[in-house]
This record gives sequence, C-alpha cells and structure tokens, in this order.
Amino acid sequence: MQRGKFITFEGLDGSGKSTQLEIAKEWLKRKGFSVITSREPGGTSVGKEIRKILLNPNHKGLNSKSELLLYLADRIQNLHESILPAKSAGKIVLCDRSHDSTIAYQGFGRGLDLDVLESIIENYIRPYTPDFTILLTISPETVFKRLKKRKENLKTDRLDQESLSFFEKVSKGFQTIASSEKERIICINGEQKIEEIHKEIIEFLMLKLKIP
Amino acid sequence: MQRGKFITFEGLDGSGKSTQLEIAKEWLKRKGFSVITSREPGGTSVGKEIRKILLNPNHKGLNSKSELLLYLADRIQNLHESILPAKSAGKIVLCDRSHDSTIAYQGFGRGLDLDVLESIIENYIRPYTPDFTILLTISPETVFKRLKKRKENLKTDRLDQESLSFFEKVSKGFQTIASSEKERIICINGEQKIEEIHKEIIEFLMLKLKIP
Repeated sequence: MQRGKFITFEGLDGSGKSTQLEIAKEWLKRKGFSVITSREPGGTSVGKEIRKILLNPNHKGLNSKSELLLYLADRIQNLHESILPAKSAGKIVLCDRSHDSTIAYQGFGRGLDLDVLESIIENYIRPYTPDFTILLTISPETVFKRLKKRKENLKTDRLDQESLSFFEKVSKGFQTIASSEKERIICINGEQKIEEIHKEIIEFLMLKLKIP
Repeated sequence: MQRGKFITFEGLDGSGKSTQLEIAKEWLKRKGFSVITSREPGGTSVGKEIRKILLNPNHKGLNSKSELLLYLADRIQNLHESILPAKSAGKIVLCDRSHDSTIAYQGFGRGLDLDVLESIIENYIRPYTPDFTILLTISPETVFKRLKKRKENLKTDRLDQESLSFFEKVSKGFQTIASSEKERIICINGEQKIEEIHKEIIEFLMLKLKIP
C-alpha cells in the first residue's frame, strides 16, 4: 500500500503557489495518486472562520501575538482534522502554506521572538513537519507588482497592505529556513513561466515519490 | 489621580459572574469611579469573532489545543486593545473571565499540559495578571441545574454541552488556583441570593480600593 505524504507549497504572496498546487494535484491524480488539497489558514470549517479574521482588512489593529496564535490554532485544527487522517489513509496532501510561513511571516516579518513558542512548536507542530516542501522564490519587488494587479481587481486583504520592507524580511526568512533544511525543501524560481515551474515541480515529485 | 485597576470575575458557567459584574459596575460608578467592562472571549471586535468560533455548537470537533490558542489570542488582543489602555487612563476594568478560566477550563477541565504554554504565559500573560479577582463558587450540580434552565430557553452554546465530570474538574481547578493566590483572589459563595453576594463583593471592593 502506498504511504501518504504531506507536501507543502510555500512562498511570498503572489508567488504562484496556489496555481502550481492545483496543476500538481491534477498531474498526481493522472499518475494514479489519491490527492487532497488544503490550505492554511482555512483548511477546516473552524479554520475558514479564523482565516476571515486574519484577512479582514478592517482588523488593522490585530496584535501580532494574537495573529500568531490564530495561525497556530488554525494549523493544529487542520493537522488533526484533515492532514493527518488523510496521510494515514495513504493520501497525498498538498497544502498551500504551513509552518514555514509562520516562521517567515511572524518570526522574520513581524520580528516576533519565536523562542517564546519553542515548547508549543516542539510539542504541537514539529512532530508533524511536512515530508517535503516546494518553496517558490520571487523577489519582494515582484510581490509588489503582482499585489498591485490584485488591488486593481479589488481583491486586497489585510496582508496585501504590507510594506516592501515587510516582504523583504519575510523573503529573508524563507531563505534562512530553506538553507537550513535542504533535504526537505526545494527552492524553485517563481519568476519563470508557469509551465517551466510546473516542470521543475514534477521532477522533484518524481524523485521524492519514486515515480518512474 | 486615581490609579486604574484590572478586576476579574471568575467562576463556573451559571455562577452569576455576569450579573454581579453589572451590579458592581453600577455601584462603583455611584462611588465616582470611571468603570469599563469587558469579557473574555469577546472583549474586542476581533475577540467577538473568536468568541463566535468558540461558542458555536457546530464546532464539536474543535481540537482542545486549538481551542486553547484561540482563548489566548482573544486574551492578548483584549489586553492590548482594551484593558491596558483603560487601566493606564486610571479606569477600573471589570472583566468577565480571564486567565484563571483558561487554567481551570483548559488545564484542569480538558487536561491539557499547560507547561507547554509556560513561556507564552510567562511572556504574554503573567505581566498583566489582574489586580484582584472575585471567584464565585457554585457546585458542579448547581451548574447543571442552571444550564438546564438555559437549555429550556434555547440559549445553549458549545460549552453548555459539557458533562458533569468536566465541570467537577474545572471546579477543582478554580479551587486550586484560589488557594495558591489568596492575596489576589477572594472566593464568594455563589449559591447565595444575588443581594448577599453583591454585599460581599462590595465589602471586598471597599477594602481593596480603599473606599471609605
């Protein structure tokens, strides 16, 4: 029986994660895998309500420590309600963001001292680290260009209103995580064309999932 | 200038906290104090949305660790947005539940290992411990009788559906906290008549706030 895997897609806002996750899902299904997708925040019904709080542009006064705890609450619910049962059932779980985003956004971006969370992370999160992670890298300037387009389409949320320097810090965070966990995380240049990125993702999945 | 105080009302569901808090507020106002009231969860606009998640009877599958983090997220937001600014401005803040409820309900009731949270509590919560706490004690059996009345009035929420043994554990939790912090916490028998409870609360407030 095929063993389940938990695979995350990470990157800055506008890096193409969600698009690539959907294309990868269809590709894996064609290869015969049973695949489910999830996202954080918002992978469960409780999580959808937490996501609404986090992305509500009226919540500009959201305290950064509260924000962090809301992300963790969403993650723990998603792990236990959705990801772990699916993985145990032998499915491939593709998740749009997870723990690496918390470290990059809340730790590096907001500058929170994550040591305070060390024992929560160690006990509640670390045992469920993703098997593999696909990190799409784009420059903070590209983030800004792409978010500007979103704004013209009026699809902005609370995080779309962050400054360039915020995204520079988050980008630094992702780089730091990726260089310390080279076995788990592959970095793929997200500034390429969609098809080129997909091709690199397929190569990585074939290798990691031992697809002939 | 009068110095602000943060005073919490604690106890089991149906212990009469909310009623006593309102009567105490009116009494303090008549004595010339500037008073605001708050509650946890739900003291801020972010908190109101967190409260909806926590009390939604459809969320029976809410993971107890997620539940705990949602309470803490609400608390931190309430402290920074509402309680601390009011206290700094010299006001009396009366809050319906706070940290002691977390210890009693999540720690004792749900049996979560709160040591995992030690550094979060130490850094994010402990510096803002209430100045005084009024704990209304009622027996778990009384909780059940009073919640049954609520149910007849169709005002049940997720926590109203807990078992007697859950409330016994929570009750034990409150007793344990109260006996370890006798300076901060006063226990008042919540099985008495409303006026008798109010009288004891007034005596306590006169002493603590040095009201002649």
